[in-house]
Amino acid sequence: MRIISWVPLLYPVGDSERPSTKNPYTKTVPRFGGIEAGGSKFGCAIGAGPEDAEFAEIPTTAPAETMARVIEFFRTREPVDAIGIASFGPIDPNPKSPAFGYITSTPKLAWRNFDFAGAVRRALGVPVAFDTDVNAAALAESRWGAARGLRSFLYVTVGTGLGGGALIDGRLLHGRQHLEMGHIRVPHDRARDPFAGNCPYHSDCLEGLAAGPAIQERWGQAGHLLPGEHPAWDLEAEYLALGIVSWTCTLSPETIVMGGGVMQREELFPKISVRVAELLNGYLEPPKILPPKLGARAGVLGAIALAGA
Amino acid sequence: MRIISWVPLLYPVGDSERPSTKNPYTKTVPRFGGIEAGGSKFGCAIGAGPEDAEFAEIPTTAPAETMARVIEFFRTREPVDAIGIASFGPIDPNPKSPAFGYITSTPKLAWRNFDFAGAVRRALGVPVAFDTDVNAAALAESRWGAARGLRSFLYVTVGTGLGGGALIDGRLLHGRQHLEMGHIRVPHDRARDPFAGNCPYHSDCLEGLAAGPAIQERWGQAGHLLPGEHPAWDLEAEYLALGIVSWTCTLSPETIVMGGGVMQREELFPKISVRVAELLNGYLEPPKILPPKLGARAGVLGAIALAGA
Repeated sequence: MRIISWVPLLYPVGDSERPSTKNPYTKTVPRFGGIEAGGSKFGCAIGAGPEDAEFAEIPTTAPAETMARVIEFFRTREPVDAIGIASFGPIDPNPKSPAFGYITSTPKLAWRNFDFAGAVRRALGVPVAFDTDVNAAALAESRWGAARGLRSFLYVTVGTGLGGGALIDGRLLHGRQHLEMGHIRVPHDRARDPFAGNCPYHSDCLEGLAAGPAIQERWGQAGHLLPGEHPAWDLEAEYLALGIVSWTCTLSPETIVMGGGVMQREELFPKISVRVAELLNGYLEPPKILPPKLGARAGVLGAIALAGA
Repeated sequence: MRIISWVPLLYPVGDSERPSTKNPYTKTVPRFGGIEAGGSKFGCAIGAGPEDAEFAEIPTTAPAETMARVIEFFRTREPVDAIGIASFGPIDPNPKSPAFGYITSTPKLAWRNFDFAGAVRRALGVPVAFDTDVNAAALAESRWGAARGLRSFLYVTVGTGLGGGALIDGRLLHGRQHLEMGHIRVPHDRARDPFAGNCPYHSDCLEGLAAGPAIQERWGQAGHLLPGEHPAWDLEAEYLALGIVSWTCTLSPETIVMGGGVMQREELFPKISVRVAELLNGYLEPPKILPPKLGARAGVLGAIALAGA
């Protein structure tokens, strides 16, 4: 699920700090393309990192229309050596699978069974890397952001949905398909929180109790309208801490980078850290819990990182 | 934690089916040593796989005494090319750490801060690989057992404790330290199950609700004495299914191999599979849930696999 919201940008937008393309080295330095596919916007980038990239965004409509604009963005610029795609899901990121590069069973019907990587490869004739938006964001935060240099950490986003990517032992984790960390079950004390949860599949899985829509439905107004002393935030910290305990026991990360709209409530970070330490109770060292550094651009920067940047 | 119990064996025991050491090719075929360190017994093996190995076991007493017998086992046989160690934990399996190869904060005080890999390397002069007993068992089941050929699966053991190892995308998972999958929190319906849980750190984490000692304490007698129609088994399947859902969302395994004393109750397998499918509710494909094939030898065979077999 695509969760980070884009900061609105004009299209296309050049990064004023990036080196001029008149630089004589331009043609010898590899340049990478990135596409981040979200439910409302596609982000495109060409470059080699956050300080050296051109960014653009394109509204998500029908595949033919959106993809035509994406392809046009790349065709009207100097060729790139490879393109990375960071997509909403579910997707098939397994290069050995016949459906590699496809968006699979997404509820966005127009995009279901869309051969995303194939479309880009056929149109632009360059190698294409393909992964989830959250794995790409994890990769970007490890390359240029809050998790720089770490070999084992999670990138978790709490917004319209709740999901995460993982870099463990220096590699993005996939497994059979990809991670769906938001759908774990956690203890739900109905005396404290009678809200039944609103995940359409699992009711009170973690996403159903702690993503933005659960906050809104439980309290009758959007989280960003609730004051800092509202009991919503202690409860939110409790659920996220329970999730972090499960992920920590199962993946052993050093650090968990938490982004997305809900995590813009900075007061959540200390509340969560305290509760995680209480729950682990000295048995395991608690992971550091940090905000992201790349913000809304983590996904598209992760896409160029997937391509090889 | 060391959980699989050893089938008692004479010491040392030759495998009658292994090729004679008089075979003229013996000296050119690499042979590997394996040591599995458990709380009550150490297993030793020399060979290249389940059909070609000599096994022995040694009681776990003080490090000096136990290790002298382990070293003697290897010294009195043809030299091996490398040795793998599969140890109870917590351990430090990170080759870049100064404490690599140590048993660290174990409650078995005599073994705390014991340089296990260093002791073996110094005594026998061969390369030493070092990992957890459950990761080693996972490796052995993937090489020769129930998970042969799989790239992403978990090996979970439910016995005196509850823990697991993971092979994901073809590699054993470590993270910062190693997995402690038994200590995740799961929903605990106190109306159905008033037992408070008996994990000394977390009370009602999964291990505290579902490992062998929890069954014994909740029902007043050991699990193997409870009849198949006892409500203990539906409750046990519920907790294990909740654990499997969390691990599946977080690691995306194709298969989960479940061993250990509690899982010798074969009626648990269908109960767990049904409940996992209900809990996932079509959102993710349920992993296959299978018994191990290597039984009590998974750990020591994993140790020779760690060494390179």
